[in-house]
Order: sequence, then structure tokens, then C-alpha cells
Amino acid sequence: MISRFPDLFKVLRRRRPPKHFHRRHPPPPRVHTMSESDLRPPEHQVAGHRASANRLGPLIDGTGLFYKPLQAGDRGEHEVAFYEAFSAQPAVPPRIRDAFFPRFHGTRLLPTAARPDEPHPHLVLDDLLAGLEAPSVIDIKIGACTWPPSSPEPYIAKCLAKDRGTTSVLLGFRISGARVVGSGGAVWRTERPEVKALDTAGIRRVLQRYVSSVDGDDLDCALAAAVYGGEGGVLAQLRELKAWFEEQTLFHFYSASILLGYDANAVSATGGAAGVRVKLVDFAHVVDGDGVIDHNFLGGLCSLIKFISDIVAETPGKPPLGRS
Amino acid sequence: MISRFPDLFKVLRRRRPPKHFHRRHPPPPRVHTMSESDLRPPEHQVAGHRASANRLGPLIDGTGLFYKPLQAGDRGEHEVAFYEAFSAQPAVPPRIRDAFFPRFHGTRLLPTAARPDEPHPHLVLDDLLAGLEAPSVIDIKIGACTWPPSSPEPYIAKCLAKDRGTTSVLLGFRISGARVVGSGGAVWRTERPEVKALDTAGIRRVLQRYVSSVDGDDLDCALAAAVYGGEGGVLAQLRELKAWFEEQTLFHFYSASILLGYDANAVSATGGAAGVRVKLVDFAHVVDGDGVIDHNFLGGLCSLIKFISDIVAETPGKPPLGRS
Repeated sequence: MISRFPDLFKVLRRRRPPKHFHRRHPPPPRVHTMSESDLRPPEHQVAGHRASANRLGPLIDGTGLFYKPLQAGDRGEHEVAFYEAFSAQPAVPPRIRDAFFPRFHGTRLLPTAARPDEPHPHLVLDDLLAGLEAPSVIDIKIGACTWPPSSPEPYIAKCLAKDRGTTSVLLGFRISGARVVGSGGAVWRTERPEVKALDTAGIRRVLQRYVSSVDGDDLDCALAAAVYGGEGGVLAQLRELKAWFEEQTLFHFYSASILLGYDANAVSATGGAAGVRVKLVDFAHVVDGDGVIDHNFLGGLCSLIKFISDIVAETPGKPPLGRS
Repeated sequence: MISRFPDLFKVLRRRRPPKHFHRRHPPPPRVHTMSESDLRPPEHQVAGHRASANRLGPLIDGTGLFYKPLQAGDRGEHEVAFYEAFSAQPAVPPRIRDAFFPRFHGTRLLPTAARPDEPHPHLVLDDLLAGLEAPSVIDIKIGACTWPPSSPEPYIAKCLAKDRGTTSVLLGFRISGARVVGSGGAVWRTERPEVKALDTAGIRRVLQRYVSSVDGDDLDCALAAAVYGGEGGVLAQLRELKAWFEEQTLFHFYSASILLGYDANAVSATGGAAGVRVKLVDFAHVVDGDGVIDHNFLGGLCSLIKFISDIVAETPGKPPLGRS
């Protein structure tokens, strides 16, 4: 079997990245010029570390780009290698690439507050939520198994404990975080320890809360039809993605997430699915598919589709404008 | 969540089965009367222990029934509980039950050669290969994960080692055994140590060998169109099963197998898919689905479908009668 992803494995074999490996990826000429002071942590971030004076985290520049600091160890370089391989892979249908993946604009060194003299390499990607006035976001890590089979044993043990301790093994996915903007602009978000402890009923509840206009015991799922259902809605997009995963044998997306986003203001105002986004993110553990489908991602995706289609089916028809 | 499978969990909680638990399942009145000397091990058995003077194993009676000895520990009783729950479950579509599952005829005590004075309880099931003159058979254990999440730790560790040591984790299934009858009646079969060591290329080769008229380096896949493709063929049946698994939340089929069978004589003579069988077997580790789909079985099933559809697509069209 010939690897379709040769650079990736080259990266995997080299345990220590060379000091200036990011120089292989100069910033593309079209990257917007801006003052670094324009960079800020995205307010809609729902999973991962938030950038602060002492900690690296993703940044946005307000012009549609998202800067993700390369992760420690091999992971950052591995994610760069994935984006390079994926961008150059002619067997990926353009519609799949454009609809479901952030565009990759190379890497860029950025100074950090913690170490101003040691700029850190960042992936430069599309900001997937750019243009949404009031983004409601949910991050769902797909797959019962989050560890590539070739991983070192301690890493497998760590991942397996998390997969068994969350809903990953049972449901084929887990929720990493969610943020919902209510009708008055109030923001509801999941808290870190709680979200890790969600059981099946809790997962169902967060997926219902994501399309509800009010919090509390009696979730109304008023936006279920507009966000999850209908043409261009989450379900239609997830089913298109599923059809690709039934066929594609290029990559196995271990530990990747599906990010859902919609504009709470726009959905509320128009009742339509305009702006509903379904994107794949987090590719630090993607491996070569070696001619075999990613049954692990596909199984979890089918499970997520069933949860969401149940919510749509169980929600009595309501005019979407009726939420206010 | 209300369990749809209450008897099963009752069985699971009781660690030691009562001495005569099989008395709860008297032989049904319609079980054929026969001399026990008619019972014999099925010659087409490809996985599991073969019945002998010192060992329990499945038996057939030549009239269409298959006797499977209840397995040790909880497993045998658990499988009986599954068959009872499944047979009585009104949400299982009759077409799915009839097409893809052996019919359950209760249990029966049978004397064994090893202990003539201690009859052993057996599941009485349809013989899935009855009526096939020259059965070519393959047993494929479906699912990357063969252990129910609630299993005791030592059992999980044992299963996980097997799942990682075979193709289960990588492909979402592994082959447990195969037997192919050639045009002159010659039988090709997998050997136990080899079949456990199959890698991806080896799995592909056994699936090709299963529909080839000759052995050797140059497998012809002459029967691919007749057995795998076409109306009523393996692929059409697997896709029907897949559609049910995308919806059904009743049972999770850990460690169950798909048994494929066809009549080498009939396919050779008619070129049609007559007699191609796709059946689920081995339910000692099935658990209640608790309202969630079986993403683990579904992912493996999709992977198997991709392997088989690739073989059909790669095989140049040949008249099926051209194999002789």
C-alpha cells in the first residue's frame, strides 16, 4: 500500500522537530497585513486553552483569519503536515474541502505575551465563525477511539481512559464544549468539569439546549427545525459528510472534532438556516487512511446524526420566529 | 432510560447461573423428534470449537436445526436471554428478523460424549446453511471493539489485546474463518493461527479468495458479481442491514459475527445469486442499546461493505459460468 500522506509519516518519525521547521511554511502572500495588537482570543471559543498572558491559545484578527499556535511535541508539526497533504490531495472533492474544512494559509510566527523574544509558529486558517454576529457554537469530538493505533502505549492508555470515562466509547462522540447566545444576547456556556462528566441524557440535553431559546428544565428546541433540519441545515450537511466518509480512504481523523455554528441573531430574524456551519477541526492526530475507510469517525458521525434527527423528529413544528 | 432488555440485565447481574436454569426454557413442541445419533458436527463450521469426544461444539441434525451448546459462565445464559428478548421485541421489523437472524426454537438438553450422564443445554436454532449442497462460508466478527463497556476489567484487557492484535481496531472487523468449495469439490479453508495474523492485505485476499474459483497468486474473483454483487447478493443484503443499524437503538451487538454463505454448486450452475445468505450470529455479548445506535457495529459494517464493493468494482465483468 502506497502512503498518500508521505510527509505526515516523515514528520511522525522525527521525534524532535527542527528548531526552525516553520520556515518551510512561509506566510502566504495574501495574508492580510495588520498590527499584531489587533489579535485577540475569539470570544466564541468553546474548547481548548484560551490565550492569556501566560498561555498560548488561538487568536483571531477580525478580518477572517484564525491563528492556532502549533501544539507541543509532534502534534503541531503533524497538524501542519496534515493541512499541507490535505490541501494538495487531488482526490478530495472540492465541495468537501470548501464546505467542511477551514482553508489553510500556511504558518506564521507570532510573538506571545509570555515570551516576547521567542515568536511561536501558528497555523493560519480561516476563522470558521467570521461573519456571524452572535455565534452559537458546539464542539463535538468524533469517534469512539481517539488514539491512532500506532501511538505509544502511554498515550493510548491516557486516551482510552478518557474515551471510557466520557461518552466516546458508548456514543461514538463526546461534547467538548458549547456556547449558546440567547434572544436577549445572554450567553449560556458549558463549564469544563461538567462537560466532561456528561452522560447520554446530558449529551442529549446539550444538543437540545443548543437549539433552544430558553434555559431551564423545559427546553423548547424552538430553533431545531431552522438549525438542525431543512435544506442547508446541520443534518443535511452531516449526511453529505457521511456519504464522503463511506467512501474516502485517504485519512483517518482520530480525535478530530465537528464544530457546529450558527448566527443566533440571523436565525432568529429570518427563521432560515442561513449561516449554519458544519466544519471539521483539530487534525493533530490524523493518520494516513491506507486504503481503508475511517469506520471510527463514520460510526460516531452516524450516532451524532441519530441524536440530532431524533431531536428534530421529537420537536413539534413551530414557526421559527416564535422564539422571541 | 427504560431498558428494553430487562431479562438480559437480570441475567448479567446474577454471576452464578442456577444449576438448572435451562429448565426455564423447555424444548418447544415443534422440535423435530430424532435419534440423538443423527446429531453430527457441521462440516462447514469455520470458527469456534468443533464438537468431539472431549469437547462441546455445535451439532446439526440434518433436518434444518442447529444445536449450539450454551457457553460457560454467564455467556450461554446471556445468549438465551438475547434470543428470547429479540424474538419478543415488536420493534424489530419482521423482514430484518427473518432475513438476517437464525430463528430461535428454545433450548434442549443433549447428552455429550464426554459426560453421558450430564446432559448439556443447547440453543436450538435454524441451521443457517441447510439446503446448500456445497456451502462456501465465511465468519466475520464485526466491530472495532468486542467488549461491552460494562465488562469486568480483566475481560476488557483480554478483548482489547485481541482487537488490537487483529484487524478489528484498524478495519472495524476481523475474519474468524472461511471455507470455500472449489469447482471440483475441493475445499480450501483458513487455518486458525494464520487467520488470526491476517493484516489488511490478507483480509482483502481472503475476501477475494471467497469468490474465486482457483487458489494461488492470481485470484480470479470469478464469482464476485454473482455472490457479492447484483440483486439479492451480499452487498445488497449488507446495505439493507446497514439501513437498519443506522436507526435501531434496541441492541448493541458486541462480538457478534456476520456469516456469509453460498452454494458453490448452485452459483456455478446458474450464475445467479440464489442461496446467498447473510446472517448475524453469536450473541453472547449483546447488550441493551438504551436508545443509542450501535455505532461500533455500524462502523465495521460500513468498512466491510467498502472492502466488498471494491472487489466487485475491481473485477472485470465475466460471465459467471466461465469459472469452470
